[in-house]
Amino acid sequence: MKTRTEHDLLGYKEVPAEAYYGIQTLRAIENFDICGVKLSAYPKYIKALAMVKWAAAKANNDLGLLSDELTAAITEACQEIIDGKLIEEFPVDMIQGGAGTSTNMNANEVIANRALEIMGFEKGDYEKCHPNNHVNLSQSTNDAYPTGIKIGLILKNEALVANLKELIASFRAKGEEFKDVLKMGRTQLQDAVPMTLGQEFEAWAVNLEEEILRLNENAKLFLEVNMGATAIGTGINSEPEYSEKCIKHLRDISKMEIVLAGNLIEATPDTGSYVMYSSAIKRLAIKLSKICNDLRLLSSGPRCGFNEINLPKMQPGSSIMPGKVNPVIPEVVNQIAYKVIGNDLTVTFAAEAGQLELNVMEPVMVRAMLESIEMLKNGMSTLKERCIDGITANVEHCKEMVLNSIGIVTAVNPTLGYEASSRIAKRALAENRSVYDLILEEGLLTKEKLDEILAPERMIKPQKFIKA
Amino acid sequence: MKTRTEHDLLGYKEVPAEAYYGIQTLRAIENFDICGVKLSAYPKYIKALAMVKWAAAKANNDLGLLSDELTAAITEACQEIIDGKLIEEFPVDMIQGGAGTSTNMNANEVIANRALEIMGFEKGDYEKCHPNNHVNLSQSTNDAYPTGIKIGLILKNEALVANLKELIASFRAKGEEFKDVLKMGRTQLQDAVPMTLGQEFEAWAVNLEEEILRLNENAKLFLEVNMGATAIGTGINSEPEYSEKCIKHLRDISKMEIVLAGNLIEATPDTGSYVMYSSAIKRLAIKLSKICNDLRLLSSGPRCGFNEINLPKMQPGSSIMPGKVNPVIPEVVNQIAYKVIGNDLTVTFAAEAGQLELNVMEPVMVRAMLESIEMLKNGMSTLKERCIDGITANVEHCKEMVLNSIGIVTAVNPTLGYEASSRIAKRALAENRSVYDLILEEGLLTKEKLDEILAPERMIKPQKFIKA
Amino acid sequence: MKTRTEHDLLGYKEVPAEAYYGIQTLRAIENFDICGVKLSAYPKYIKALAMVKWAAAKANNDLGLLSDELTAAITEACQEIIDGKLIEEFPVDMIQGGAGTSTNMNANEVIANRALEIMGFEKGDYEKCHPNNHVNLSQSTNDAYPTGIKIGLILKNEALVANLKELIASFRAKGEEFKDVLKMGRTQLQDAVPMTLGQEFEAWAVNLEEEILRLNENAKLFLEVNMGATAIGTGINSEPEYSEKCIKHLRDISKMEIVLAGNLIEATPDTGSYVMYSSAIKRLAIKLSKICNDLRLLSSGPRCGFNEINLPKMQPGSSIMPGKVNPVIPEVVNQIAYKVIGNDLTVTFAAEAGQLELNVMEPVMVRAMLESIEMLKNGMSTLKERCIDGITANVEHCKEMVLNSIGIVTAVNPTLGYEASSRIAKRALAENRSVYDLILEEGLLTKEKLDEILAPERMIKPQKFIKA
Amino acid sequence: MKTRTEHDLLGYKEVPAEAYYGIQTLRAIENFDICGVKLSAYPKYIKALAMVKWAAAKANNDLGLLSDELTAAITEACQEIIDGKLIEEFPVDMIQGGAGTSTNMNANEVIANRALEIMGFEKGDYEKCHPNNHVNLSQSTNDAYPTGIKIGLILKNEALVANLKELIASFRAKGEEFKDVLKMGRTQLQDAVPMTLGQEFEAWAVNLEEEILRLNENAKLFLEVNMGATAIGTGINSEPEYSEKCIKHLRDISKMEIVLAGNLIEATPDTGSYVMYSSAIKRLAIKLSKICNDLRLLSSGPRCGFNEINLPKMQPGSSIMPGKVNPVIPEVVNQIAYKVIGNDLTVTFAAEAGQLELNVMEPVMVRAMLESIEMLKNGMSTLKERCIDGITANVEHCKEMVLNSIGIVTAVNPTLGYEASSRIAKRALAENRSVYDLILEEGLLTKEKLDEILAPERMIKPQKFIKA
Repeated sequence: MKTRTEHDLLGYKEVPAEAYYGIQTLRAIENFDICGVKLSAYPKYIKALAMVKWAAAKANNDLGLLSDELTAAITEACQEIIDGKLIEEFPVDMIQGGAGTSTNMNANEVIANRALEIMGFEKGDYEKCHPNNHVNLSQSTNDAYPTGIKIGLILKNEALVANLKELIASFRAKGEEFKDVLKMGRTQLQDAVPMTLGQEFEAWAVNLEEEILRLNENAKLFLEVNMGATAIGTGINSEPEYSEKCIKHLRDISKMEIVLAGNLIEATPDTGSYVMYSSAIKRLAIKLSKICNDLRLLSSGPRCGFNEINLPKMQPGSSIMPGKVNPVIPEVVNQIAYKVIGNDLTVTFAAEAGQLELNVMEPVMVRAMLESIEMLKNGMSTLKERCIDGITANVEHCKEMVLNSIGIVTAVNPTLGYEASSRIAKRALAENRSVYDLILEEGLLTKEKLDEILAPERMIKPQKFIKA
Repeated sequence: MKTRTEHDLLGYKEVPAEAYYGIQTLRAIENFDICGVKLSAYPKYIKALAMVKWAAAKANNDLGLLSDELTAAITEACQEIIDGKLIEEFPVDMIQGGAGTSTNMNANEVIANRALEIMGFEKGDYEKCHPNNHVNLSQSTNDAYPTGIKIGLILKNEALVANLKELIASFRAKGEEFKDVLKMGRTQLQDAVPMTLGQEFEAWAVNLEEEILRLNENAKLFLEVNMGATAIGTGINSEPEYSEKCIKHLRDISKMEIVLAGNLIEATPDTGSYVMYSSAIKRLAIKLSKICNDLRLLSSGPRCGFNEINLPKMQPGSSIMPGKVNPVIPEVVNQIAYKVIGNDLTVTFAAEAGQLELNVMEPVMVRAMLESIEMLKNGMSTLKERCIDGITANVEHCKEMVLNSIGIVTAVNPTLGYEASSRIAKRALAENRSVYDLILEEGLLTKEKLDEILAPERMIKPQKFIKA
Repeated sequence: MKTRTEHDLLGYKEVPAEAYYGIQTLRAIENFDICGVKLSAYPKYIKALAMVKWAAAKANNDLGLLSDELTAAITEACQEIIDGKLIEEFPVDMIQGGAGTSTNMNANEVIANRALEIMGFEKGDYEKCHPNNHVNLSQSTNDAYPTGIKIGLILKNEALVANLKELIASFRAKGEEFKDVLKMGRTQLQDAVPMTLGQEFEAWAVNLEEEILRLNENAKLFLEVNMGATAIGTGINSEPEYSEKCIKHLRDISKMEIVLAGNLIEATPDTGSYVMYSSAIKRLAIKLSKICNDLRLLSSGPRCGFNEINLPKMQPGSSIMPGKVNPVIPEVVNQIAYKVIGNDLTVTFAAEAGQLELNVMEPVMVRAMLESIEMLKNGMSTLKERCIDGITANVEHCKEMVLNSIGIVTAVNPTLGYEASSRIAKRALAENRSVYDLILEEGLLTKEKLDEILAPERMIKPQKFIKA
Repeated sequence: MKTRTEHDLLGYKEVPAEAYYGIQTLRAIENFDICGVKLSAYPKYIKALAMVKWAAAKANNDLGLLSDELTAAITEACQEIIDGKLIEEFPVDMIQGGAGTSTNMNANEVIANRALEIMGFEKGDYEKCHPNNHVNLSQSTNDAYPTGIKIGLILKNEALVANLKELIASFRAKGEEFKDVLKMGRTQLQDAVPMTLGQEFEAWAVNLEEEILRLNENAKLFLEVNMGATAIGTGINSEPEYSEKCIKHLRDISKMEIVLAGNLIEATPDTGSYVMYSSAIKRLAIKLSKICNDLRLLSSGPRCGFNEINLPKMQPGSSIMPGKVNPVIPEVVNQIAYKVIGNDLTVTFAAEAGQLELNVMEPVMVRAMLESIEMLKNGMSTLKERCIDGITANVEHCKEMVLNSIGIVTAVNPTLGYEASSRIAKRALAENRSVYDLILEEGLLTKEKLDEILAPERMIKPQKFIKA
């Protein structure tokens, strides 16, 4: 393999001649063979880093610290990455020590070498364009890296919300489709009172819809960044107007409403926004898991369970039980949820581990959040396409359960009172009779009154009380 | 013991004659001997329940469903509870099965019996005022109970934020006191670049200050309630205008901007607001833990550690090592944080366990959150009074460490470049020399330039770069 | 209030005259108003501490370091505590900073003052018997405290296992009672193949029975203690034979097979045994939660659910739905499980927070584990007495579901092959017919063969295959 | 692409002609695009599955249910997989619904098709050798799959322990190397009493050494398997002697002491062994994290921290601070630990989600545990090679801190008593003097006595007390 020689604080190493990355990336590859997932697995995250480098170069140029030629070359290199090129030049493990220095240096090196090419120089000719002195100018890993993470997470959140919206639409469409399917509602797994299957699906739609706002509100916390903090937030090695200019350029390139943190010393080690956003994706996971549990309950059977709905059949369900078909799609979503909840704990631990002027555990937080987002995205589109869209209802069975239920006694409660109603319910259960017959038999209500009270359309929403 | 006889669906029981609670509360006491913490341990939570009952009675009266006399008696009984009376009449264990029915019935029974007294009747004379038919009229546990929880949590959050604000003020005052104490900042526990001790304390103040907004924003989710949902959100056994009227009265009695959930079927089993608020208190716990870790690091020593600050001495530190004094207050706050994080996991598990039209696990969520809030409140006031307020700085030692550090080489980086600076740093470490001397020895800068660059006031904020 | 004056490293304080505890306990009470649960809430834990002090005094006497008179008085005081006296003299909050120093000093002070009384001196006359110089002789908090915790946890584990055994017996008795109740087994909530209800209950018994061994095996890790480690495990301020003698006496007083850790420097900060035992109680919680979920599923209904079993009715289930009775006991056990799982996370966090020669977070670990054990104990005895013992089966309904099921097609699989069986299953579902009829209709088996294959007693255990 | 047509319960699909997997695997690939990690990422896990299939075929042959020819072909195909072939034929996502049916069918199909080839038939000619009727004969996913998982985890545990042992050896060697380096021990980050650096490293070695036993003991739980349980543990579709014969063959092929579970209905849904083993790997992670925190503390500095040890320099530490080198290897191990702890929570959630006769969430448990094991393996070998092996001590600095410390006053405690010693300590701190000088100045001990008491070799282990 053809190589070029590079050197750093620790000595000399041979870098593959075609590589855009350099010696520090190479060291990181050697040092961190941890989880097997590379930075290149998350292109949006790399693009976000390039935006940061683009903005910093522009700001440095404004301040006269970076020549026009270098600025042009560096920003062009950044733009190429933003456009999706050179992603494979980021081969460092997602889980790494060094508080992201390896990721930041990977970006600095790739951009420097691509800029060198653009200017007509050889890769590695760092006198002309240096990863630290030029690409990283006025920056530290401790500001450029978390800023990149945050922009990357905003991009990922947009993709997550897009899939979520499609899933919500699917639930809503089913809510409309099933709006006249009368069924028993259940509390504590016990028969409660009637509702429609459409109400149930629409409630899931609404339940998930709230997550759009929650995710977006919490992702907004990422808009506050610490460019200009440099090493510890004091801004050493940056000029007074740099922060402000850098933010302006960052808003331009990202099209996001990015703002500068009010106190950069506070902002630099702070990982509170990750904690909060990770909580929001955990909440989405909890809700999806609860809904999938419900789908599995309602489709339990076919003959010894609730059997209210049928999930589409995706694959034979058993290697031994012929004809068995299982709710495999909700099951996989439950499992995604458990992994997401585990990842939130990882974020919690890592956040607590910050020390003094830095939290060195950001790489594992990023890894955990990006893994969670990716799985939730996949899980929601799988759930929509391979499950919700194809659900059918067992209309007759649902209706029979309502008519046969004891729970409808609740509807006569305002008319007969809690104690008489309780007595009827108890008799119905003990004698295996219907509530309807017993009320008539006891002469508590006329048939007309009773039919009015128990009309399905009356039981599924608030009504004026009827006197006995 | 004198008793009165009460009966319910399951039969008859003797209730202590003076008790305001009734048979269902008694069953709950017998059924649930679980964690030993009673509802009465959290008066604000009970008061919130009374507000709900007050508002429901008013709404029922508006609709002509509850007589003026009963309404007057019930609301007077509620007001007494809101004023802090009868709290001891809530002896049910905080952790209970039944989705809060026992808590709701405890309230219904106490209010009914107190209302009976007010009207001049005997306790237990439920023909005149019935726990279910009158006090619980138009309600279900499934709407009244979570509404009570939410109002209770809003009240508790206010108290939590009050203590938080005092702690922030304490950090801020120390920030001001230490604003001229120059010290080394550290990243990854390695010497980094200079800052002031005041900047560090002010950063902690700002870091915690963000939590005020986070807590309040997430507590706002509790303003959305489901009164009128009754059993499963369909509003069975409530009249069409009940929800609206009840919310209006609830706003009056609570002085909170309470709103009705847009979809009551969705809102009834939903515990998303608990998940989010619990995450917010977890975030506060994480931050407090990180800050206490920092305090313990900075006060490590006295002779073999960082020894930058002195925590006030609260108690002898060792049963064997004479003279040892330990950072016991930060240590206890760390432990509170771990319990809060554990409680957040409890909330996560319980939230995921919702099924169909209800989540029956709310009692343990309430228990977990109230325990966390109480401990955080105690912990923050302890931290303020017994630690932060009394911290002193070792000014000279802090300053010496800066002068002696290698990290100040960073300040010459813009002038000399990354590679030359790295070489100086490496030599300083290897030869145990000072960066200052080496730069002069190598003739890289004049003494004047160097003194200007290394002036403390220059190193702790952004500066115009100085050319060599 | 009458007081006596005591002093320590930090100064003088007035201690209530009758108090057996002294100034350091008083400081701890003032410093730690955290969770409201006092040491005195866990008498076994205090008794264990007294055993440690008893053994240390004996060992010191053996070595000639403590006079016979002091030894007699100190051990008598310890014995009184072991016998259940003076428990209320331990008013320190369970969650405390200082790595247990306050707990250790609380014990030292109470024992010293009681010993003084026994010897005929006044409380507080520490010249005659000093909390540190005599009661704590050859010890540090860092060895005496964790040793006490471990013995305390062994005692608590015994009580936990006792309740567990009673619960297992209850499940087993029901297994026997229901041994002939044929029912459908379910996998993935889908109808699978037949089994008996007795098999299901016996399986739960076996499942929980494994926990006895798991709890006991992991509690055995507590038998290894670090007496003689003193401050950091080097044994400073203890004589060479002290460790060995102390362990011998500790075995005598505790009747436990206690051993000395092989490396005291390792053992002193190590909290691995807590992590492992906490995991074991978490496993018990997980299993109980799973079983309670199952109980709630099987008792779902009464008319729109599985309805295979009836849980005893413990309380009216609803404030609005007359006649509704809910599975309140399993529900409360689920909630206990979630709290236990949360507490295990607290232990995890605290264990990870050890630093260098000590882990200062032991108090919260103890608090978390004792809370979990207590709740599990309560929960298991509640579950046994108020639920399992009273469960009845719906025998006919269970049997009908088997006969009506498609899952029994599995039994013909070895005879007809997977593909033919799948086809029959698919037809049965589509045409709403019985598997039995279809097999006969298609002439795949004679009625005799089919009846033999589908005999209930054949389907619930391995059988020789039958050729078509 | 050339294809062959296969069909199943749900219809027909085109399978790539060269693929050894079949239609059910294809459906699984389509259904589950979740985490991007395929079964093929864990060859040992696939080999374990092949062992199960090998043993089942042998048992079926013993019972006369599978012809010699088919048995020979199937076992040969299995052996090839065990030898590392065909691994890439397992392209299903690790996280999947269906309780592992897709994984089991993937194995059944690959083995069937390879067996067909061995017998001279075409792939897909399932009349001759059928994935279900022959390869899966007498099995269900619900016994074959968890048995495969368990054997796979035993194999992975062996690899984990191997790396752990190497790391322990590395700590131990350093313990020997540093056995004469006197340093201060620290408790609660405060200076405590002297020890040697060698004692500290040896303690870490011992601390990790305990994990070998813990891991192996808990991995032993995997030796109990449920072959013959078939669908729900009743053994339907298996012959009476099958279980026993299958276990015997499984012991032969695996060389493991595998045993049959005592109650197969219990064993089938039980995931207790995963919970326990996951706890054990969590405990290892906690310990590694604690040790890495210690390494970072001890190497803090170089001039403003503890600075007792030097970690080998692996990469430049900062993009802005020249010469800074960070503890990147311990940092990455911390992060691994947080991910492992998160994964343990995933296992906890999934274990609790078991329902009735099965726990469908096993795939995510396997994914979580294998991810954790792999990262711990990588992390430990990285830690050993890139950190521990290269650590050096700052001998002089360590010694100076001891001599300069106040903590050595502890050594005079047995001679002078706790109160006098406390007073000396207090004076030393207040007057910034040495304990040594003050004791002499106060005439409390002669110089000879004091020198004897404070001799370093005396302070690091138990000693006979010296009288004043």
